[in-house]
Amino acid sequence: MTSSPPTAVSTVEGISDNELTAIYDFAVLLAREAGERLNEGARQRMQGTATLDAEEKDNAVDIVTRADEDVEAFVKQQISTRYPEHRFLGEESYSKGASRDYLVDSQAPTWIVDPLDGTVNYTHLCPMYCVSIGFVVGGRPVVGVVYAPMLNQLFHACRGHGAFLNEDPLPLLQKPTPPPLPANTPSGCIFSCEWGKDRRDIPGGNLARKVESFVTMATERSGKGGRGGMVHGVRSMGSAALDLAYIAAGSFDIWWEGGCWEWDVAAGIAILEEAGGLITTAKPQEDDARVPEAHLGGRQYLAIRPAGPSETETAREAQERVVREVWKRVEVLDYTRPGI
Amino acid sequence: MTSSPPTAVSTVEGISDNELTAIYDFAVLLAREAGERLNEGARQRMQGTATLDAEEKDNAVDIVTRADEDVEAFVKQQISTRYPEHRFLGEESYSKGASRDYLVDSQAPTWIVDPLDGTVNYTHLCPMYCVSIGFVVGGRPVVGVVYAPMLNQLFHACRGHGAFLNEDPLPLLQKPTPPPLPANTPSGCIFSCEWGKDRRDIPGGNLARKVESFVTMATERSGKGGRGGMVHGVRSMGSAALDLAYIAAGSFDIWWEGGCWEWDVAAGIAILEEAGGLITTAKPQEDDARVPEAHLGGRQYLAIRPAGPSETETAREAQERVVREVWKRVEVLDYTRPGI
Repeated sequence: MTSSPPTAVSTVEGISDNELTAIYDFAVLLAREAGERLNEGARQRMQGTATLDAEEKDNAVDIVTRADEDVEAFVKQQISTRYPEHRFLGEESYSKGASRDYLVDSQAPTWIVDPLDGTVNYTHLCPMYCVSIGFVVGGRPVVGVVYAPMLNQLFHACRGHGAFLNEDPLPLLQKPTPPPLPANTPSGCIFSCEWGKDRRDIPGGNLARKVESFVTMATERSGKGGRGGMVHGVRSMGSAALDLAYIAAGSFDIWWEGGCWEWDVAAGIAILEEAGGLITTAKPQEDDARVPEAHLGGRQYLAIRPAGPSETETAREAQERVVREVWKRVEVLDYTRPGI
Repeated sequence: MTSSPPTAVSTVEGISDNELTAIYDFAVLLAREAGERLNEGARQRMQGTATLDAEEKDNAVDIVTRADEDVEAFVKQQISTRYPEHRFLGEESYSKGASRDYLVDSQAPTWIVDPLDGTVNYTHLCPMYCVSIGFVVGGRPVVGVVYAPMLNQLFHACRGHGAFLNEDPLPLLQKPTPPPLPANTPSGCIFSCEWGKDRRDIPGGNLARKVESFVTMATERSGKGGRGGMVHGVRSMGSAALDLAYIAAGSFDIWWEGGCWEWDVAAGIAILEEAGGLITTAKPQEDDARVPEAHLGGRQYLAIRPAGPSETETAREAQERVVREVWKRVEVLDYTRPGI
């Protein structure tokens, strides 16, 4: 599955390359096994031999199923047996602790797991659900696996070793080099976004700000006082982890989101960055000349797909250009957390 | 692939059941072959051995690729060889005729084909694209095949023979009976909708009406003056044909759309109706006690998934209840055409 290390020394501090590739191989196997467990639950419901066992968390669209909890317990047990010295953060165990503090220690190697991202899809037997397993060192995701078992798509990456889809030995994205980003972005781009769980009808609330942003991105260029983005398409799949993997693969060009937690994005960020994508904050509070790194626990993200250079721009220059074109058109969101 | 006919007499006027199942088998094989051709084009682009060949039609988000045209020519040639007495309507040949008249003859058996639905997805190598092949008799779709080759999902149905996914011998939807629709719909439902190609920034325009409808469906129940729908999730995949197939399979519960043409929906309607789903108009101009049948060329649709009965409702009663709950929350759209 993993290619030979380019050198024997890992680019990840405090972990040898041999250790890192072993962790990577283990993460891929673990995701595959966890995904099969999710699919087995779905199959039983399709055949009428099992019924859905779900309950609400914060509101009627924030739900947890027995599958989330069972698969998380399985993944946690596997990791703690194999790597007892590593920390573990999972969506379901995290939530039950009630705290919404950012718990990722900047030193300890940590597994960050969402056993089932796209839970609403899963409850409806809609294929866009996945297991998301990230491994984080020094607060940075360095291994990521996002497996959507009903779509038969397993995205995986390891720092220094490339990002891949399934068994394809060629790395993401389109080979040999990804296409450049369009000159007149955000036009020509597929814009991926999610409606999320905050559905309060408040002027200036997150739902209103999101929708205003979606509409500005979608409207013809002359619309919205010349701010219209006329994106190629607006897509909502219902899974942040899968959104990030699709950005890494170039299936989507731009993903903009607020409201996620680190278990939604840790694995996807590892895959995206290793594929050559960019991830930053959804929109800075104030104009900033820099495009900052996304904070893993920052809850607001803007991701741009990997890009080939053009005659006039490097890939990074083009990605930062797209970031600024998106920032012009989206609202500042209001998702915060203790300590960040 | 097809099951034995329940009787030797077809329920489709003027066509024997043997003829109909032969047409069905042919349509499935044809969709599979057409889908493989689409995937071959995608694979070549992924490997860098081919580049995208696309041009704009009505505006920058209305595009046609070489693949649309080549696959349509292939499908048309196959059908005209096998069934020279049948009529053929394909998206690309239709569009080039410039007329937007409704050309489905109420008498002649007609193939209605979209060689590539989700063209924007296809150009971005995003998996949610498909070939859509419908066979219509007396203005009603009676055979439908929707094949999404990169998702490995082939939905197919024939009047009187059931609706199926891939080789699974059990019919759509969840077996043995589909779950009832939720009591407090549209809450508990996945709402599928598309932003579409009409992006004009006009007060009261289709984009504004669509967005207002999406927001009302998404907002908490107490919001929007008590009209909030608090749907479970809002999804946009970018393909009407696939949306309908997902409704037929129960992956989505509600699909609401304006702006489609008959080639987008003919196959999907055949699959949906055979699976036990309901399709009607997006919203009547005036309050109507009836839930009318959707017109194939009506350009505006509301589809509800197949449902099991509950203790207090038949499936049809529950579906009509959902229809009325959606109609309360969506705007009247402005998509028309000559002659309808």
